[in-house]
Formats: sequence, C-alpha cells, structure tokens
Amino acid sequence: MRHPDYTLTAGPTTGWPRVQAALGSPIIYDYDPVFLERFRALEGKVARLFRTGADVVLMQGEAVLGLEAAARGLVRAGDTAINLVSGVYGKWFGLWLRDLGANLVEVEVPYDRAIDPADVERALVANPGARVVSVVHSETPSGTVNPLHEIGPLAKRHGALVIADVVSSLAGEDLRTDEWGLDLCVAGPQKCLAGPPGISLVTVSEEAWAAIRANPEAPRGSFLSLLDWKERWIEGGRTAFPYTPSVSDVNGVDAACDEVLETGLDAYVAMHRRAARATRAGVRAMGLDLWPASEDIAASCVTAVTAPDGVRVLEVQADVRERYGVMLSPGFGDLKERLFRLGHMGPNARSLTPLVALAALGQGLADHGAAVSVGDGVEAALEVLSQPDDAFMPQRA
Amino acid sequence: MRHPDYTLTAGPTTGWPRVQAALGSPIIYDYDPVFLERFRALEGKVARLFRTGADVVLMQGEAVLGLEAAARGLVRAGDTAINLVSGVYGKWFGLWLRDLGANLVEVEVPYDRAIDPADVERALVANPGARVVSVVHSETPSGTVNPLHEIGPLAKRHGALVIADVVSSLAGEDLRTDEWGLDLCVAGPQKCLAGPPGISLVTVSEEAWAAIRANPEAPRGSFLSLLDWKERWIEGGRTAFPYTPSVSDVNGVDAACDEVLETGLDAYVAMHRRAARATRAGVRAMGLDLWPASEDIAASCVTAVTAPDGVRVLEVQADVRERYGVMLSPGFGDLKERLFRLGHMGPNARSLTPLVALAALGQGLADHGAAVSVGDGVEAALEVLSQPDDAFMPQRA
Amino acid sequence: MRHPDYTLTAGPTTGWPRVQAALGSPIIYDYDPVFLERFRALEGKVARLFRTGADVVLMQGEAVLGLEAAARGLVRAGDTAINLVSGVYGKWFGLWLRDLGANLVEVEVPYDRAIDPADVERALVANPGARVVSVVHSETPSGTVNPLHEIGPLAKRHGALVIADVVSSLAGEDLRTDEWGLDLCVAGPQKCLAGPPGISLVTVSEEAWAAIRANPEAPRGSFLSLLDWKERWIEGGRTAFPYTPSVSDVNGVDAACDEVLETGLDAYVAMHRRAARATRAGVRAMGLDLWPASEDIAASCVTAVTAPDGVRVLEVQADVRERYGVMLSPGFGDLKERLFRLGHMGPNARSLTPLVALAALGQGLADHGAAVSVGDGVEAALEVLSQPDDAFMPQRA
Amino acid sequence: MRHPDYTLTAGPTTGWPRVQAALGSPIIYDYDPVFLERFRALEGKVARLFRTGADVVLMQGEAVLGLEAAARGLVRAGDTAINLVSGVYGKWFGLWLRDLGANLVEVEVPYDRAIDPADVERALVANPGARVVSVVHSETPSGTVNPLHEIGPLAKRHGALVIADVVSSLAGEDLRTDEWGLDLCVAGPQKCLAGPPGISLVTVSEEAWAAIRANPEAPRGSFLSLLDWKERWIEGGRTAFPYTPSVSDVNGVDAACDEVLETGLDAYVAMHRRAARATRAGVRAMGLDLWPASEDIAASCVTAVTAPDGVRVLEVQADVRERYGVMLSPGFGDLKERLFRLGHMGPNARSLTPLVALAALGQGLADHGAAVSVGDGVEAALEVLSQPDDAFMPQRA
Repeated sequence: MRHPDYTLTAGPTTGWPRVQAALGSPIIYDYDPVFLERFRALEGKVARLFRTGADVVLMQGEAVLGLEAAARGLVRAGDTAINLVSGVYGKWFGLWLRDLGANLVEVEVPYDRAIDPADVERALVANPGARVVSVVHSETPSGTVNPLHEIGPLAKRHGALVIADVVSSLAGEDLRTDEWGLDLCVAGPQKCLAGPPGISLVTVSEEAWAAIRANPEAPRGSFLSLLDWKERWIEGGRTAFPYTPSVSDVNGVDAACDEVLETGLDAYVAMHRRAARATRAGVRAMGLDLWPASEDIAASCVTAVTAPDGVRVLEVQADVRERYGVMLSPGFGDLKERLFRLGHMGPNARSLTPLVALAALGQGLADHGAAVSVGDGVEAALEVLSQPDDAFMPQRA
Repeated sequence: MRHPDYTLTAGPTTGWPRVQAALGSPIIYDYDPVFLERFRALEGKVARLFRTGADVVLMQGEAVLGLEAAARGLVRAGDTAINLVSGVYGKWFGLWLRDLGANLVEVEVPYDRAIDPADVERALVANPGARVVSVVHSETPSGTVNPLHEIGPLAKRHGALVIADVVSSLAGEDLRTDEWGLDLCVAGPQKCLAGPPGISLVTVSEEAWAAIRANPEAPRGSFLSLLDWKERWIEGGRTAFPYTPSVSDVNGVDAACDEVLETGLDAYVAMHRRAARATRAGVRAMGLDLWPASEDIAASCVTAVTAPDGVRVLEVQADVRERYGVMLSPGFGDLKERLFRLGHMGPNARSLTPLVALAALGQGLADHGAAVSVGDGVEAALEVLSQPDDAFMPQRA
Repeated sequence: MRHPDYTLTAGPTTGWPRVQAALGSPIIYDYDPVFLERFRALEGKVARLFRTGADVVLMQGEAVLGLEAAARGLVRAGDTAINLVSGVYGKWFGLWLRDLGANLVEVEVPYDRAIDPADVERALVANPGARVVSVVHSETPSGTVNPLHEIGPLAKRHGALVIADVVSSLAGEDLRTDEWGLDLCVAGPQKCLAGPPGISLVTVSEEAWAAIRANPEAPRGSFLSLLDWKERWIEGGRTAFPYTPSVSDVNGVDAACDEVLETGLDAYVAMHRRAARATRAGVRAMGLDLWPASEDIAASCVTAVTAPDGVRVLEVQADVRERYGVMLSPGFGDLKERLFRLGHMGPNARSLTPLVALAALGQGLADHGAAVSVGDGVEAALEVLSQPDDAFMPQRA
Repeated sequence: MRHPDYTLTAGPTTGWPRVQAALGSPIIYDYDPVFLERFRALEGKVARLFRTGADVVLMQGEAVLGLEAAARGLVRAGDTAINLVSGVYGKWFGLWLRDLGANLVEVEVPYDRAIDPADVERALVANPGARVVSVVHSETPSGTVNPLHEIGPLAKRHGALVIADVVSSLAGEDLRTDEWGLDLCVAGPQKCLAGPPGISLVTVSEEAWAAIRANPEAPRGSFLSLLDWKERWIEGGRTAFPYTPSVSDVNGVDAACDEVLETGLDAYVAMHRRAARATRAGVRAMGLDLWPASEDIAASCVTAVTAPDGVRVLEVQADVRERYGVMLSPGFGDLKERLFRLGHMGPNARSLTPLVALAALGQGLADHGAAVSVGDGVEAALEVLSQPDDAFMPQRA
C-alpha cells in the first residue's frame, strides 16, 4: 500500500519538518563532545517545557518505559497507592502497582468522564498513609483530561507523592510540574511535541529521588532504572551514560523542543487548544457525538468520537486510509471498536489540517451509509480556526 | 565545538547514507499498514542476517535492553549459569546473573585473550546441570572475539542453553545462529550494520521460549519482557505491539539491513575483515602494539591498540577530535585509559577510511611526543586494502 | 514569518517525499559513473512520460530556458510563425518570435478561452509557408488547456513544425508527443511532476533537429544551445556534458519520474483530473465563478477562480498565508489581481488536500466579507473525490 | 556501480551536511514570503563573501551561465577586449568574445603558469582603448591561480572594466572584489562553498551596469540577461523574479554561505590553503610532480598532478573509483589525459581527508606499476595539517 498522505492519529504523529531533518542528520558517537553538549542542553529544554526546576531524565525507550520505571522505582510491596482511573492507561498503571504488591486503592470513573477531585480527597482521607497518588493527565485512548492542577496540590497536602502520566499532555495542555506538586512525570515526544517516539521524558523531584533511593527494590543496574541515571549520569557530572542513548531519537526530540520553545510554550499549547475546539465543533456540527461526557474535559491532543450505531470502526478506518490516504486512530483497548480518534498534534494542530480529519471521518462514514453533514462540520470548525490566537492561550493562575 | 568530520569509534558509528535518509523520512503511525508491513518484513531480514529460522524479536531499546531481557527471561534463582568472561561486557553480564540468584560459574581469561573451548568443556563437565552458558562473541571494549562456532555446539552437547551477545559481531563476523546452536542472541544495529542505536535485535529458539515460559520470574507486562512480544505480537498474528515501537529507528534499521543484504552478507563480512586486517597491519607498522594477544582473536569491528607508556589516552583522544575532527574511542570500563579503539564498521570499513583512523591516531600520538611511523602504517594498511575481496570471504565449514 | 503549512500554488509546488530525499542525498561528481548512468536513464524515463521515441534534452535551468532555446533554435528572421495565444505564456512566446525577426501571425482568444482548431486551420491556409506553429498546452496563468491533440496533427498536415509549451501539462494532462506530431516540447518538473524547478525537460524530433542545424543563428557554444546537447552529449555517446549539470536537481527530477512511473502515467494523470474536477465542483458550490469560460477547457494543474467584485486578491492571499499557513497563487501577468489559483499538483492532487485549498480560499474571502458557502464547496468536492479512480482515466483514442 | 565513498574532484564536490539538509527541505513557492526573504538575505550573504557593496545577481544556472551573461552583457562588436589566458577556461572565454565580434587581444601563457601583470600592462598600453580585461582567478582545469589582486587594479587604472571568473576561488582564495576593482565577477557554489551547482553567483559594479545598459546587444528578456535581474528584480524592489528561481538550489547555497560565514571567511580560506599546501607536500614527497610551474601559483581548490610517463590517466582514475570508491578528477579539456586533480574543497578541505586523496592517487598509480612512496606523502601532508590555523590565514594588505 502507498504511504499515508496524512497521519492524523493518536500518535506517533507527523513530525515537524525540522524533526525529520534532525533525525536524518549524521549519526555521531554518544561521547562526542557535540552530542554530550546536545544531550545536556536537551535536559534543560525539556525542563522548560515541564516548567520545572527538578531533574530531567531522558530514558531511552518510549514513554511506557518511563512509566514502568516510575512505578518500580517509587512503589514497593505494602505501600498504599491511590490510582486514579478514568481510562485505559490509568487502568494499566494499576496493574503494575498491584504486581508490585502495593495496597491498591482505585478511584475509578467511566471512561468518558474525568476524575472528581472530591473523590480523590475522600480516598486520601480514607487512606491516611497513602504513599503515592498516580494519575493520567490526558487519557489518549478516550480523549479526556483530568484536573491535574487540582489533584496534584491535593495529594501533596495529604503527604502523598504524585506520579503523573503526562505522555500526551506535555506542550498540548497547560502543565505546571512544580507549581502543582508533581513528583514524577512521564511524557512522550511522539504526541504534542511531534517528535519521534523512542524516548521517555521524565522529571523527578527531590522527594521522589529520596523515596526511590530508600526503596531496596527499585531497579538498579537495569534498563528500567531511574537511579542509574541519577547516580551515573547526573551525579557523575553528566559524563557517563548508563547505556548507549538513542542518538537519532535524541536529535529528533531536541529539534521538537526547539520548535516548541521558538513558538513559545503558551502559544504552542494554544494552538492545540484551538485545533481541538475546532475539531469538536466540527464533529458536533456533522451530527456526531463526542465521546467525553462534556467538552470541558476533552483533550487537546485527540478528539474521541463515538462511533454511530451499526458502524464498524475498523472497517471505516481502513477504508479511509485506503481511499483517501488519511490515517485515523480507532479506539484503544476496551474502546477499540467504539471510537474514532482524530489527532491534532504538532503540525496537525496548525493550519487547516483539522478539516482534513473531519472530512476524512465524515466522508468515510458517509461511504458506509451513515448520515453525516460534512459541510456543516467544516464550517463549524472553520469558525473556530479563524479566531485569533489569544482566545486559546492558557490562563495563568 | 564543530561536528566531527569522522566518527571512527566503537559505536554508535557513522550510518549509511540510506540509513540517514530512512531516519529522516516521515514519521508514520505504528499501526499504519505500511509500517506494520515494514516491521514484519524487517524481522525476516534480520533473521537472514542471523542465518536463523527462529523467532526474531525487535525490542525497542538499545542492545543492553535485549541482553537484560535475555538474562531475566531465561535465568532464575538457583540455576547454574556458566558465564564466559573475556572482557568488560562478559563481566557485566555476570552481574545480572548473580543478581538473579543464579549459581554463577565464571570461566575467565585476561581481557586480551579469548575463551578456550577446552575450559568451557571443563566447566560443563564440572557442572553437569548447567542450565545456561553465556558468552560474548565480539568484546567491543577490548577488540577481541571468542570462538563462538566451537562454544555454541559444545554447550548444546551438554544440554545447556546458549545466550550469545553478538552486539558488535552481527554482519561483521561470521555468525551462524542455528548451525552453532545459539538459543538467544542479541545484536545492536549501531555497530557493523551502521544503523541507529535504539533497537535490540534478538533471536529466540524454541527451546529458549520454552524455558522462558517455564520461568515464573520472567518479566511479563514489562518493557523488559520477551514474552510480551511472543504472546501479544507473534502469537497474536503480528497485529498488536506490546508498546509503541520506535518508528524512526525501525526505519533506519530496515535501511541498514537492506544495505547488508544487497551487498551480500558474506561480502559485507569480508569488507569488515579486510578493514580490520588493514588496520592491524597499519598499527603494527606504525610501531604500536595491538591489545589482543594474537591477531587471530582480533575483532572485525574495532581494533584495540595498547596505549604506549606514558601516553594519556583521554587527552590524546580529545586533541585528535579537536585538531583533526576525528572521533576515536578510548578504552571502556577498566580499560578506559589503557587503549585506543579504532572503529571500522559499515561505511568506515569501506574505501580508504581505515587510513584516516590510523593517521589520526598516529599523528595524535606524535603530537604528544610519541615516536610513530605513520607513513609505514599507511603503507602497510594499503597493502591489505588493495587485495581482492575474495581474500577476506568467510570460509564455509 | 513561519514556513508555510501548505504550498497549493501554481508551482513550484510541494515535492513528493522521495523527491525531498533525493534532493538531500549526497552531491556527487557529474562524471561519476553513478551520476552518468542516472542521467542517461533519466532521459529514458522522461521520454516515457512524453510518450516519445525522440531525443530528450535535459537543459539545466527552469523551463523558460528550454522555451527560449526552442524559439532561438528553430526560428529565424523571415520565418512565418503562427503563435497561438490564449494566455500570458502564449503571449510571451510571441515576444521572442518577434524579437527573432519572424513574420509573426497570432491567433488570439480571450484568456478565459481555448484556441479553436478551426482558427488555426484558417491561419495555416492563409499562411501556406508557415514554418512553425507554437502553442501552450496548459496555460497555468489562467488555468486553461488548448486542444493540443487536434492542433498538433493539423499543423503537421500543413507542413509546420510544432513547438508545444507543455510546462504544466506533462503528467497532468493526456499528452502524446509522437502521436500528435509535436516537434519540440518543453516541460517543467516543478508542476505536475512535483519535483524541483531548475531543469527544462525538452523533446526534439528529427525534423526539429534538422531545422535547428540548418539555422545559422541557432545558439551554439551557449547555455541556450540545444545543439550543444545534441552534438556534444548525444552524438558524443553521452559521455561529455556541455556544461556542469545541476546534480541535485537531476536527482530530484529522477525521483519525481519514478513516482509517476510507479504510479502509472495514466493513473497519475487521472489523479490530477479528479483533483481538478473536485476543486471546480467545490468552487462553484461555494458560489464562486471559475475563470475558464467552460469546464471542459479547465486545466488539471490549477483551478483559476475569478475574484468576486471588490475583493483585493493580493490582500486576501497574504492573509490566508499568514492566518492559515496556506500559500495560494494569485493571477499572473495581466491577470494578477483578478484571479486566485488553487494548485493541485503531485501530492496536492492526492488525498483530501483539494479541500484545504477550497477552505483556505473560502474562509479567506469570508474573512474579507465575501459571502461564501465553504461547507457546500467541501461537500461538492468530496462527492468527486469519493468516486473511483477509473472515472478519471484518460481515454485512449 | 556503488555510490562513491569520497568525491574528491574538481567539483561538483561533496556538500556540507547542512547543505544536504537544506536541499532536502520542503520545496516552497518562490513568492512565499519565507522564500522571498531568504532570497534577499542570500544576496547579502554572497556580497559578504565577495567583500563587495555592489549588486549581487543570483542567476539560476551553473556558473557558465553567469560567464556567458557577463560576456554578452558587457562586450559588443568592435570592443577591444584583453583576454588573459592561462588555462582552458580563459581560452574558452575568448571564444565568446570573438563570437561577439570583439577585437580580441590575448595575453597567453602556458597552462602551468600564471599571467604576469607586466604582460597585462604591456597589453593595456598597446591597446589604450581597451574596454574590458577578462581573467580567470583560479584555473580549475590546471590548478593554478592568477594574481588578480594586481591585475584588477592595473586594469582599472587603464580605464578597462574587469571581468573576473572566480568560479573556484570564492571562499577558497583571498578575494576582494571592491578593493581590487573587479566589475563583474562570477562564482560557482559547487566549488569551495561546497554547495550544489545550479546557481551563478554574480556581482556587478555600477560601472558595469552602465556599460551593460548602454549595450544595445545586451540580452534582454532572456535567460542570459543580467539586465532583467537589474530592472525587474532589483529595481522593482525585489518582489518579482524574471523567471522561476531554482528553489532547492537556492536553499542549498544559502546553507553553504551560512557555513562559511559562521566559520569566518578568513578561517574558511585558511582551511583551503592548508589543505592545498598539505596536498602539494604529499604529492612531492610521494615522488610525483605538481603541474603548476611553482607552488606559489598553485590553487587552493584543487591540486593538479602531472601524470607520470606512461600512465593512462583515465584508466587509473576509473580503477581508483572502482577499487577504492574514491572519485578523483582527471585533467580537463586539452589536459584531460595529462593530469590528475585532487580536490580539497569544503568538507574535503577539513580534517584528514586530503590524505585520502593522496593515498588513493598513490595506491592507484602503484597498482598500475608506478613507483610511488605513499607513506612519505602521507607523512609530509600530515606535517602541514598539524600546523595551527593561523599559519594559513590570508594576509590583509
């Protein structure tokens, strides 16, 4: 089959042109002074995206590596861990916690809803010694966001460490690591950054380091070890890697960070918000239903659309790919055949590309007999896309 | 500092032009039909490089991930594991084995020597229930090779599973996975393949799978899990990845495999042999000493050179990088300040590039006061480089 | 200003991904055996696109070089030249003819119409010794096509040589150089081929060569010389270039030709026809007027849209570029401020990209107060884009 | 055949990595604001390389286009033109002058020598009304340079306009356009700039513009016209190109200029001088003869080596390419089979790459039976390459 013309998925997503150029640049030795300097500087750039003064660890595998490393590093048998579940990834994180022998307390809501901070507070009160609260900021599988700005401070007030999966929210949603008291965050570059997958972007607070060091079961001498990075790389003066970094991915992520920082982080987030709002407006105007229970919990990275009754999601998706060259995502996990997901990340959040996703979905459904008003959808989306940038800027607290 | 003009290191090494182009191609969705097809086909290409009919697993992290996964998958507490140590990497592998609670038996030789199969046999006889023999084919840190073609069959005859670290030997040395009875091999693409790091190329025999499945401690639901790849990806009909693959690295490795297969595997190995022999001839003619105790155990991927007395390896190396733009490797681990390593992998094994490594080292030493005959070295190397290809082809048994 | 997100212009247009990769590949010596072989093979590929057995000359400058070379090579003072004018480029070609001292006979129609073969016949009858008929196949500035399939044979029957400007029609319109009796054709790679500009793709029949050779004023020893290519390159056995070829452009054009030939020439033309028909349907459904007097003379490469009364074309175009990142073309020459031109060439003729052009124009006009029904336009375009490929295949005579 | 591993030719030569990246970046519309801005800025960068305040014209074809445009623009029938001939390109320039009907006066020396300013002065005195002096700064075919710093001012003192072919000297030799009174210079980007061919870099003084305007035969409305660029582009406020620029080549040349300017022009020239001196030292130490009669007239871009008696240049060159993957240049024109030319431009002037050229030539000759001391050559070259940068910096007057 031909290469796709558009990759409007839940990620990996289309990279920025400069990301492609950086990926295609010469491969150099990881101890070359140029690479060492780039790697160190990249940590600083990533810290700026997270708005943190904490350590950044660039683990050399896709974000699931960072998440597993976080769980195994921070949590040990007998710990009480409050896991907030509003989607597939939240549920999966609990599996690691249970596997580690934690006393797992789950606050769970249907996957079209967001966690209510009041429920979190109740759980914290009911479990006064809870060591960890884990939460997914942006649930890519269902296109929803949780109120991390409330959950973080709340958990901290109760003395818990906060592990935040921000894989798909970094640079797409407002995110304030230090201000919100997030101890261990993990993001992926193949989402809103529009870089390559293959790297976990991790931040670790001093409190989190102390907890990991105190954990005799925390991985050491392992690909899963955060401590190796702390002890060999950071404390060793950033001269020795625990293992060979993925040179090309590092180059690509570096270019993606430059794109965000040159655009300005707030403006970059605003771009994603606008694209998401336009897509939602389009979806509704086409006569389709959004999956999230309300628009204010809808994610900036992907828009999840409930498949109309009788529609076979995977068939429609495959036909859209073949006939129109547009790659969309179906649902994921339990929701696989119930949702379509329209990605609008990085370059796909710019310009009029959200219209392509809407038209592809709309026409794909129409080709399968569904009644869809593509024209109305495009007009509704355009109305949003034509509004000025500052309408979408994050509000500072 | 400026970008290096030459990266003649122990890896990551200069990629092929087509590898750079593939790395710089558009990032696509991992479930795009084009990517799925490429990923599946790549497994077949890698199998051809290994000369195996066994399963290939493409783990999405640099080779140390595959090695750790192999150890954790195959070995459990109480197992007797015979670990062959002729260098830094062999020694490190033993650390995992010990950590896993294995009854560790090490056959060790000085790091400038190769393992003697007779010693292995003695160890096997002395430990009749040994479950595993682990061995490094090509010890990149010291530029030596072990007689894997003898060790593999020997271990099999004694009923042990063989774990072979072939990180830097794949496509650079003669390697026959099935013929030699290697159960679990791990290679890296950033060595002789001249691709990007970031992927572990793993082969797993049926016997090895059986052992992993039987191991209750084998990682499951983990980035370190071979079983996840077997159960979700392979047995699931190769439609679902256990986690997001590193799309760009996969594209790059695919291009690297094409380069080898279009050249012909034997011719590709011969190219490395010639470059290595030329480099060794040059080193000796310059008046320097090879680190390996004899030439017949010297590796094809890098040539390890003993630093002359009084020479500060890291200073010379840094000066060569700064003055001549040539990046060489020092030693590694315990040998860090005792060796120089000249890489000749992929494109650096072609053409006259070995001369650049020789001249850089020679002039770098001369700049620091050492007496070196660069001219003699270049002439000796040229004599080898001007010989016909077939003088370097691997001999079929 | 930021890079454009979409380049939907009259050309240069977005290149194919493989074209970008080829342009970015290493620059090699023009006499390297690899380059010589590529150059020779490219002539053959171009000949296939032209459906010709005649000589192909790859002049190393954008298409205007080939056109000027054609005029100066074929036409001399006193020759009667019938120049067909239906647009800006046709008019300009006449300026060269007049400058060369030709007895210029022009058959001219308004720029929203096509040449009527009956008028050509009348001119040929009235000028029985006419040496040359010159015609533009696809008038990019006004988005119209002339009936070259009738004009060519007609001119030949009257003994005239035919010079055809097929700059923007090659691979976008049905074109049969030999069957239609076209003696000297000139195309550009930056239009439907979606390659880089910088090369003129020229075909020269035996009759045309004879005429050029017989012309004492034909450029010789000049960048403008077709004869130099014939005598030094072609007749010299294709071993010596008259001057240094533009290596990178040649690589890019080669990749573009591969794209067309692998797609299949007819299918490639059909793709352009479909995109053009969809765009026209969209324009009309939005409530706007096409510039061409009738749809059957509308071009496949760009759709020319009449600017609504009171609209300032250049302002709207600049705003669309700035607000939406979409680059459209205004008119050109005399028509500059009267038209918008929506390009749909190469990758922009695939997938749903024509919708982006429609939405950009429609919203841009709406932003300036025009009444435009973007939704209706998109729906009308989608109806065409969802039809099967074979509905757009060229009909063989 | 395989791609070359090294392109150490007289040009086109290996491009800088950033040049490759720029060539492979997206093709955009020539009237896109980003491209317009880049084009205008590039003129300024080129002016800095020429050290001129005069107009820069970027003609969109390889340097021979600019040279022909210069001749046809400045010289008309009856003009006395003093053409200095010390090589093939100088001789060729005279053919245009003669063809234009000039009264051609040639000052000619054997092709292994440089023009003596005293001879030029004699010619100027003997031809008091001479309108033009034309001279090649660096004769790439024979690897020699002429004393342009003396010839320019001398010609100006006698009231002549100076046309300087600096195709291969720009950024490789010291060049001071305004200080030396050069009215019309033409350079190529595929030489010391290590960019793509396909653009002529031209500077035109006010005096030269006046002369061109006054020439009724100067090309107008032509690909060969400098005036079109002056009147449409420059005087029109740099908003309208006379024809479509070669977008990709412009991007590539822009990146090449950035490389030079970031390195510093003097340091960039010094790099070429060092490489050339090292190559010459190597050639002599190998026992071979330089073609230039003395080292002080040897060029910085290529080193011309006299083929030893009995050696078949083209056979050796082809063998070196096939066996070692190194592309060298033979002679050119009349000298084709008498010389080898070793290029050291751009990245090939850095690092130890000159050794590769020496070893390739030396071993190639040795393979054909010649007695060559490659080792001595490499040592002699290394001695030069190990000297500090400032030993090679141009001396300011």
